[in-house]
Amino acid sequence: MKRVDTSDWPCPIARSAAVLGDHWNLLLIRQACLGTRRFEEFQHELGIGRNMLTQRLAGLVEEGLLRRVEYQQNPVRHEYRLTDKGRDAYPILAAMAAWGDRWLTGPEGAPVVLHHTACEHDMHAVVVCSECDQPLDVHDVRATAGPGAPEQAVSRARAALSQ
Amino acid sequence: MKRVDTSDWPCPIARSAAVLGDHWNLLLIRQACLGTRRFEEFQHELGIGRNMLTQRLAGLVEEGLLRRVEYQQNPVRHEYRLTDKGRDAYPILAAMAAWGDRWLTGPEGAPVVLHHTACEHDMHAVVVCSECDQPLDVHDVRATAGPGAPEQAVSRARAALSQ
Repeated sequence: MKRVDTSDWPCPIARSAAVLGDHWNLLLIRQACLGTRRFEEFQHELGIGRNMLTQRLAGLVEEGLLRRVEYQQNPVRHEYRLTDKGRDAYPILAAMAAWGDRWLTGPEGAPVVLHHTACEHDMHAVVVCSECDQPLDVHDVRATAGPGAPEQAVSRARAALSQ
Repeated sequence: MKRVDTSDWPCPIARSAAVLGDHWNLLLIRQACLGTRRFEEFQHELGIGRNMLTQRLAGLVEEGLLRRVEYQQNPVRHEYRLTDKGRDAYPILAAMAAWGDRWLTGPEGAPVVLHHTACEHDMHAVVVCSECDQPLDVHDVRATAGPGAPEQAVSRARAALSQ
């Protein structure tokens, strides 16, 4: 079944979801953040089938989160390294980990603890406002049309506001 | 094709990815955050097929991110409301939106601007350390075994550290 492509929807969540709304992509980025670079290593760590892995790695390269780099010439071998764009997705994974620890952990406790070497504390990720540094709550956030919003969406938003 | 279930992996990212690593689930939570509650409204807003929508809503109810509430008795009609667990996923979506704005926006600019009514500023989400409040960078975070880690993973981590 063909997946619906949301990469050109006028919504940054929908656009991100086109890449990050896929559990294999998330796990491949997680592995890359942990230092995994080679096809066989990804396969071994995740237990993912070769076809699926080939397809997902190609997708992440095409989307610019990984780059394919030759590390050996005879025979030619490639590995996959995080780009700045891929590395910048890490905080999203960290926020998912914090949510997972809060809502999906059994009585045995969290399987993983994150240690922040910058401040030398065990920690969890918190998503805050860039302006006031307070943790975000959906009740305090309003989405409005930005400069790149299609005219149709802007009209609809104006109509809603004037009701 | 059956999807691999990562919900019991000893990793909070893998566990979260079992629910959030799905673009429809992300978009349904986005819609729920925007106030959408009813089946036909989700369908209309997202253009998602009825079978897919039925399946995804049931999954989000089963996972405890939405609850199904009767809003009319004759005939019986239900709507879907965010639970605390579902609402707590919003910051992850906000972090995805910020990433989307940085990496997936064309020259026309961001389609959506988020306004934080708590501080009355337009803003974007930032993922920070719970202990030092600094933005997270993958280079400064080390994952270690937590209390709920399987013994096998702990042994492997110890072996890696002692190398």
